[in-house]
Amino acid sequence: MVKNVSVVENIHSANDQLAAEIRQRLDNASVFSINIMASPGAGKTSLIERTLHELAALHEIAVIDGDVATSIDADRAAEAGATAVQINTGGQCHIDANMLRIAVNELDLANFDLLLVENVGNLICPVSFQLGTHKNILIASIPEGDDKPYKYPAMYQDVDALIINKIDLLPYVDFDMAYFEKGVQLLNPDLVTFPLSCRTGEGIQAWITWLTGFINNPKTT
Amino acid sequence: MVKNVSVVENIHSANDQLAAEIRQRLDNASVFSINIMASPGAGKTSLIERTLHELAALHEIAVIDGDVATSIDADRAAEAGATAVQINTGGQCHIDANMLRIAVNELDLANFDLLLVENVGNLICPVSFQLGTHKNILIASIPEGDDKPYKYPAMYQDVDALIINKIDLLPYVDFDMAYFEKGVQLLNPDLVTFPLSCRTGEGIQAWITWLTGFINNPKTT
Repeated sequence: MVKNVSVVENIHSANDQLAAEIRQRLDNASVFSINIMASPGAGKTSLIERTLHELAALHEIAVIDGDVATSIDADRAAEAGATAVQINTGGQCHIDANMLRIAVNELDLANFDLLLVENVGNLICPVSFQLGTHKNILIASIPEGDDKPYKYPAMYQDVDALIINKIDLLPYVDFDMAYFEKGVQLLNPDLVTFPLSCRTGEGIQAWITWLTGFINNPKTT
Repeated sequence: MVKNVSVVENIHSANDQLAAEIRQRLDNASVFSINIMASPGAGKTSLIERTLHELAALHEIAVIDGDVATSIDADRAAEAGATAVQINTGGQCHIDANMLRIAVNELDLANFDLLLVENVGNLICPVSFQLGTHKNILIASIPEGDDKPYKYPAMYQDVDALIINKIDLLPYVDFDMAYFEKGVQLLNPDLVTFPLSCRTGEGIQAWITWLTGFINNPKTT
């Protein structure tokens, strides 16, 4: 007798079970949580720094940073006022729910209102692994180019909010916003979008307003 | 009796065997080949366009483009004067040697001097899959930030040449070149580096000179 085991399916089902457990723990502790995904260098850590700058005095915020190597990002988050936990994925191209569970175990969730998870810099792999966070956020970046929704459709399809970062570079690159937005529209028509610049601060307030609407109220999302 | 199969090891050894076969075919046909890797939007397709602009009149050039979806990149390469083959990886985050083999089968290698392979936009996964190409090229991009060698060390360690693209954006972003270069130096001390701008053309000639040194002479590399 040959027993066929679908490994990929089992991996994802085991992951989703852990993700559901993480969500339950976050809900029980009234911690609103987001999973931030993007290419390398699109501005995940810069967005976290800006968000901490705006909210660290008002809320207790934890940051979990996933990286292949180093603790550069967690160091920057801690410097900006968060309790930060670094996950080193050991070469893996994404965070999975088990990695996040181990990192969450380092936090006393009762002490926090908001958890920001920074995924590994990658436009493909992270979207296949649910983490149990309340919202999945994608950061696009102007210098990456206007064709990214077309070329990385799964990522654009599966997220709840899109940040378009580095709008201060629009005058210096060839980026057709109408073409970009048409691609987004085709994949995810109701996607809430925040054009902004983490460098100059332009557009940050709309993002902060949207995000704070969920804090202390995670169960309604 | 339980037979343990190390799936990852077998995958890589099977891949390396196909890669060696591809190399043999390229050598037999005197086709010099490079595998271009980078984050999404760092400028792989733009570098290929610039390279074709400089060399398409002098050499017969084939381009194989790997993408999760669309044929945007292969269309751009064909428009710029190459014979182009598109690989759609079906969601996979890298090209492997088997995918490349299938694409190479679409080309009559006797007709070409140079093969440019554009890998999937990803700073992590492609480096684990040798393709049999003569040189592995990494494109870094100024707006990605100066910390990328530290955060994605495997990619920087395993490449033969580094292009630092979008130097025209240096005045508009915070990029510490000395810090970036120190990271590169630690990982890959003899790495040949080409700072350039595919947009303005600055620095392109040094890259073209280096590349043409290998064409028609692949076996000496």
